[in-house]
Amino acid sequence: MAEAMRVAVIGLGSMGMGAAKSCLAAGLATYGIDPRNSACDELMAAGAVATGAGGRAFARDLDAVVVLTVNAAQCRDALFGEQGIAAHLKPGTPVMVSATISVADAKAIAADLAEAGLAMLDAPVSGGPVKAACGDMTVMAAGPAQVFDALQPVLDAVAGKVYRISETIGDGATVKIIHQLLAGVHIAAGAEAMALAAKAGIKLETMYDVVTHAAGNSWMFENRMRHVVDGDYTPHSAVDIFVKDLGLVTETGLSMKFPLPLATTAYAMFATASQAGYGQLDDSAVIKVFPGITLPGDEPKA
Amino acid sequence: MAEAMRVAVIGLGSMGMGAAKSCLAAGLATYGIDPRNSACDELMAAGAVATGAGGRAFARDLDAVVVLTVNAAQCRDALFGEQGIAAHLKPGTPVMVSATISVADAKAIAADLAEAGLAMLDAPVSGGPVKAACGDMTVMAAGPAQVFDALQPVLDAVAGKVYRISETIGDGATVKIIHQLLAGVHIAAGAEAMALAAKAGIKLETMYDVVTHAAGNSWMFENRMRHVVDGDYTPHSAVDIFVKDLGLVTETGLSMKFPLPLATTAYAMFATASQAGYGQLDDSAVIKVFPGITLPGDEPKA
Repeated sequence: MAEAMRVAVIGLGSMGMGAAKSCLAAGLATYGIDPRNSACDELMAAGAVATGAGGRAFARDLDAVVVLTVNAAQCRDALFGEQGIAAHLKPGTPVMVSATISVADAKAIAADLAEAGLAMLDAPVSGGPVKAACGDMTVMAAGPAQVFDALQPVLDAVAGKVYRISETIGDGATVKIIHQLLAGVHIAAGAEAMALAAKAGIKLETMYDVVTHAAGNSWMFENRMRHVVDGDYTPHSAVDIFVKDLGLVTETGLSMKFPLPLATTAYAMFATASQAGYGQLDDSAVIKVFPGITLPGDEPKA
Repeated sequence: MAEAMRVAVIGLGSMGMGAAKSCLAAGLATYGIDPRNSACDELMAAGAVATGAGGRAFARDLDAVVVLTVNAAQCRDALFGEQGIAAHLKPGTPVMVSATISVADAKAIAADLAEAGLAMLDAPVSGGPVKAACGDMTVMAAGPAQVFDALQPVLDAVAGKVYRISETIGDGATVKIIHQLLAGVHIAAGAEAMALAAKAGIKLETMYDVVTHAAGNSWMFENRMRHVVDGDYTPHSAVDIFVKDLGLVTETGLSMKFPLPLATTAYAMFATASQAGYGQLDDSAVIKVFPGITLPGDEPKA
């Protein structure tokens, strides 16, 4: 039997931890890199070969790297920063960059990796923590065919579905950003609709029931407005994530001088929610930008 | 065997014709009222008892009426206009008003019907022509329990699902309007996302495939953006329908001084499309408001 591929996951948040554990479940020799000891300990307990705040101790052993940091700055730091591993990887090691980042960042990181003799797959993911945990993420990726091929064991481990968008670095980021445009607008539209229902005196449970059985439904409405009906804003994905992602969408429009009337409106709604102090609540808490209504879970007015 | 209920459908458009034929299929004695001879002929050929531009000739025989006109003005005209049947119906006849109309219109029509001794169910529908044709519409209705009960054979014939929103006339209209807020914003958001994909050089077929398998999906994205990918704007439901429906949404917000940032933005997009000459195309043609892109089916630029 061939030796198992050795893969490191950088960023052990809810998505990265799920991806790392999926690699373990698929029999890959798995390493983890995260500044938080607790995350490293959790992955070690699950069977990782090694973990650490940086990865220089084991960089030379790796056959592949997956980056699932929150943003481009963290991605750059893990690759090229003080404890960065890029300079310590074997030449040609494929790096799957799966954070949600701008097209410009994707291209710049690919160029810097190339300078270090490394190959990049521009490979954003979707599906949320639940799908990440069971190796069922959707990967929307762009890059040379041989990089896809080199990463095949990792893709098999973490993804239920892999889209090969194109060979052009940046196209993966673009597709993810356009996907987030829809996801963010749908959450904000769900909030706007439920806020109007509350104002009009329609029971939110009834409104939810009608919409989820009719043509006005969306994946996000069905998933997130359930939280509003239940008055439970435990963050599965936080308001501030969509401030970031709709910010990327807005910047993408700006960079092309392309009008995005709904996305920029939705961005303003999430940014308003964040500034009002709801940034760390579940993203469905964007409904709290609407005044003049009482929602499930609200304190009765004095 | 009891005699079959005698029901007239007012407005034999795509929804009304489907509902009328569903009544026939359910064994109800069915009548049709529409100013267009062709529609009347079609329903007669399907087995109607009688049809006409007005319905005074058979109004006295009816046990129930369903109104599926395009708007409130047509509804009022059919009930209270020159050829209106309201004054000729038996006292207490239930009238199921299923056009998409404002809350104010629903309440005003109910009041006028009450003055004529008639009972109203505020009963908007959704599901589109296909579901109407097979008796599988969704009805979101408000009104007194005894009016629901009186209309039960009709509801059984035309609806797959009936929501009893409340006893308050106007709540059905409100729920439908909020549903249309979501439907309209989702179509416009789908158009905005696909326009950005076209601008960024992402294949629309690929973008469609990714979104419809991920959390950014909506019922409307999946249904309507298929038309954009195919470059086929044959109207299943026209741009001008959403100019009307998002107009009702906007008026609803105005009447409550309630902000609806996404719905009013989407209204502006549909109104722009209508003014640009696309009002009678499929509502997915709202994507044509975005300049600077080439879409499937577009003439190559000279």
